Amino acid sequence: MTSPIWKVHALSSNTTAALAAFVANLRHEDVPQDQYGYARKSVLDWLGCCVAGTREAEVRALGDVMADMGSAPHATLIARGAMASVLDAALLNGAAGNLLDLDDVHPQLIGHPSSVVVPTALAVAEWKGLSGRDVLTAYVAGYEAMVRMGLAMEPELYDRGWHATGALGVFGACAAAGHLLRLDAAQMVAAFGIAAAQAAGLRELFGTSSKCIHHGKAAMAGILACLWAQRGTQSAADVIGGRFGMRTLSEPVRTERVLDGLGTRFHLAQTCYKRHAACGSVHAAIDAALALRERPGFSVDDIERIDVRTHTLSVSLTAHNEQARTGYEAKYSMHYALALAFIEGSAELAVFSDVHVADPRVRALAARIHMSADPDMQYVEAMPSELTMTLRDGSRTVLRVDTPKGRPSNPMDWSDMAAKFRQLAAPTLEPSAIEQVIEDVARLEDVDVRALMQRLSTAEDAAAQAVAA
Amino acid sequence: MTSPIWKVHALSSNTTAALAAFVANLRHEDVPQDQYGYARKSVLDWLGCCVAGTREAEVRALGDVMADMGSAPHATLIARGAMASVLDAALLNGAAGNLLDLDDVHPQLIGHPSSVVVPTALAVAEWKGLSGRDVLTAYVAGYEAMVRMGLAMEPELYDRGWHATGALGVFGACAAAGHLLRLDAAQMVAAFGIAAAQAAGLRELFGTSSKCIHHGKAAMAGILACLWAQRGTQSAADVIGGRFGMRTLSEPVRTERVLDGLGTRFHLAQTCYKRHAACGSVHAAIDAALALRERPGFSVDDIERIDVRTHTLSVSLTAHNEQARTGYEAKYSMHYALALAFIEGSAELAVFSDVHVADPRVRALAARIHMSADPDMQYVEAMPSELTMTLRDGSRTVLRVDTPKGRPSNPMDWSDMAAKFRQLAAPTLEPSAIEQVIEDVARLEDVDVRALMQRLSTAEDAAAQAVAA
Repeated sequence: MTSPIWKVHALSSNTTAALAAFVANLRHEDVPQDQYGYARKSVLDWLGCCVAGTREAEVRALGDVMADMGSAPHATLIARGAMASVLDAALLNGAAGNLLDLDDVHPQLIGHPSSVVVPTALAVAEWKGLSGRDVLTAYVAGYEAMVRMGLAMEPELYDRGWHATGALGVFGACAAAGHLLRLDAAQMVAAFGIAAAQAAGLRELFGTSSKCIHHGKAAMAGILACLWAQRGTQSAADVIGGRFGMRTLSEPVRTERVLDGLGTRFHLAQTCYKRHAACGSVHAAIDAALALRERPGFSVDDIERIDVRTHTLSVSLTAHNEQARTGYEAKYSMHYALALAFIEGSAELAVFSDVHVADPRVRALAARIHMSADPDMQYVEAMPSELTMTLRDGSRTVLRVDTPKGRPSNPMDWSDMAAKFRQLAAPTLEPSAIEQVIEDVARLEDVDVRALMQRLSTAEDAAAQAVAA
Repeated sequence: MTSPIWKVHALSSNTTAALAAFVANLRHEDVPQDQYGYARKSVLDWLGCCVAGTREAEVRALGDVMADMGSAPHATLIARGAMASVLDAALLNGAAGNLLDLDDVHPQLIGHPSSVVVPTALAVAEWKGLSGRDVLTAYVAGYEAMVRMGLAMEPELYDRGWHATGALGVFGACAAAGHLLRLDAAQMVAAFGIAAAQAAGLRELFGTSSKCIHHGKAAMAGILACLWAQRGTQSAADVIGGRFGMRTLSEPVRTERVLDGLGTRFHLAQTCYKRHAACGSVHAAIDAALALRERPGFSVDDIERIDVRTHTLSVSLTAHNEQARTGYEAKYSMHYALALAFIEGSAELAVFSDVHVADPRVRALAARIHMSADPDMQYVEAMPSELTMTLRDGSRTVLRVDTPKGRPSNPMDWSDMAAKFRQLAAPTLEPSAIEQVIEDVARLEDVDVRALMQRLSTAEDAAAQAVAA
């Protein structure tokens, strides 16, 4: 690794200039190889989320709106059998990838980095005919820009009411797009300024299906900023550190955290993946339930009651849905998510259906689940949960899970990611296409992005049938 | 005027629902006729600003970016001889209308209402084949939504660092588009939620040519929100009053001010127009200079010195450019703006050129202008200025202007607005087209919007030549 050029900028200039120089000058070989391992997992994870998201009515409605607008065929609209301009593809794929809330999370960012950075990088790379190797480097640039802004501004930004995925996602999208479009450092400064001028996203939309507009608009905003800056348009000199720049959203902006270890320390190892299609705060409990279920002689019919002791926040997030009526509500219900896991042996997306929730066995078990908050429980990469299972014979088993599968210290490996992708993509893509995509992403460095996206396109008819089914 | 339906909603529901019902149910005849007089002036004013803006390199660069994206021919790209999708037209026309900062202002909003609402309303009306009458009603709906949000959140929003034109402009665009697209009240609630999720715009971009992205993106965001909500997508129930809604940007949100007199009190009479192509804080001084110049026997060569006493803020905004080098800098320089006004007899756009600024007579007079802050001066609709002109013979004339032309108590009438439009449009549009547009807007109720926009289209070649010239 050579001496990083951006360090000179960091000394001589400002925060935005230093970050811009990092993005403009980053070379594939400047990044430790293990980071690309995480990046490939994140790309595959996001692709699965996006394919599954396209089956939802809201995403199809947004796609219909954009189809009415028309645009040049730059980039694939995933699983719609159509192409659109690079801006529209970023908007639509970006929104689709988050609708189900299965996409990865960076805990200190309090947001979803890949759901903005991946659709941006793929759309730009497809448009420009670039390689997977380019996408991976751009992904790292985008991820670092977005997460480092989170380190500088969280948790105050979240406490104030912002959704970082939108408000800081513009930096991730701008960095990824700018790297792929070969902006120089001065153009990147302007692009960050134009991107920040579009920073938006409110927690008030949490729990509504339009929240995913934060993701799509951030992706679009970052690309638009780069394209305009590339043609010479100027913007603020230091939108990160300036008095009425990002501090407008929330103070403080710890600019030193944006630059701390820039180019030598990378953050992808902290990415958290969702193995289950439910609220993150019930993942530990679901892992415990699945483990209990594997015990010799286990039978759901023997369960007298389940007591769940968990983090206070988890109770406030998931105890209000004792009477879940829909698959969607069940995702945010400790009682129903656990009952489904015990009975179905899984908490994957297909399990959270209205039909499964209406199953009398599920409802009966949910009613026997009791929840309590333990103020002494610490937040250990996720919210820990302890299950006490009491059987009809009076015997008890206690199992505590601090760190559910998918967290950095209990990682999902490549085969776990592939399994998740297969589940999410199965109703939409042909089995052969699914395996090809997994293989492509596994060796993404050597893959032509246009060929990969072609596999993810699928016919509109097939997707429409999946929706109708 | 019949009993307003939205009042029932205001009592039974929340702020967003009440505003949504107002927008959805507003009829042309519910609005006092004098408001449409202001509306027609604002439409003509904005059209002139937009035509002039399209001659600027940054707007042309943004247009080139969007041309690469391609889109369906829904609406006219003003003065580009091309059409684009309703979203792209709103984005590009919206940006163009503000680049020169000549567009109207609402003082309590601390922003530019028409520069978001007019391009939105025109693009949607052209797309849907609606009449000028529809545009006028939609304009009132959009203006009220945007300005009332300003009354609820300013000046704290501005003090924090937000540019209201972007951050609150999404409400104006959303209301105007929603009215034209015939959204019902429930759809308008969702649309406001989706629009607010895109609320952005930072004061850090003031003084940069990319600031106008706030205007264009707000216009686009409002339309996109309506189109998505119209297809059934849900959003926050009360994004205006909700805990993590608009309060995220700045507190307090005085929700009662959003609804106070809604449907019975309208705010268009407070609109301020810019007669001069310079920073608003030098307008009073320019008016004084132009009046002094009209005195019998006046000659610039007789001036020994000019002393300007003005509001403290005006000094801080315009005293730093004593050595203006460019036309752009001269707009924000009390010394150069005044020198130009005295010598050229005007402060219109064409006067603020690099050539005029380089004129030795202008530079010599600028050097004889002296400025001082008067802490006792009050903000009277604009920043007042008192000019003391000392002639070489030792005689002195003192003239104070509190309220420059264009302010509500010293209004520009229709002929003033038409004169401004002629000045701004002359380098781009044919003389006959200019007069036709003025006539069309004067009787906008009866005009087909597509015909009006056709007159504003012009050939790409003509606009390109204007840029090259």
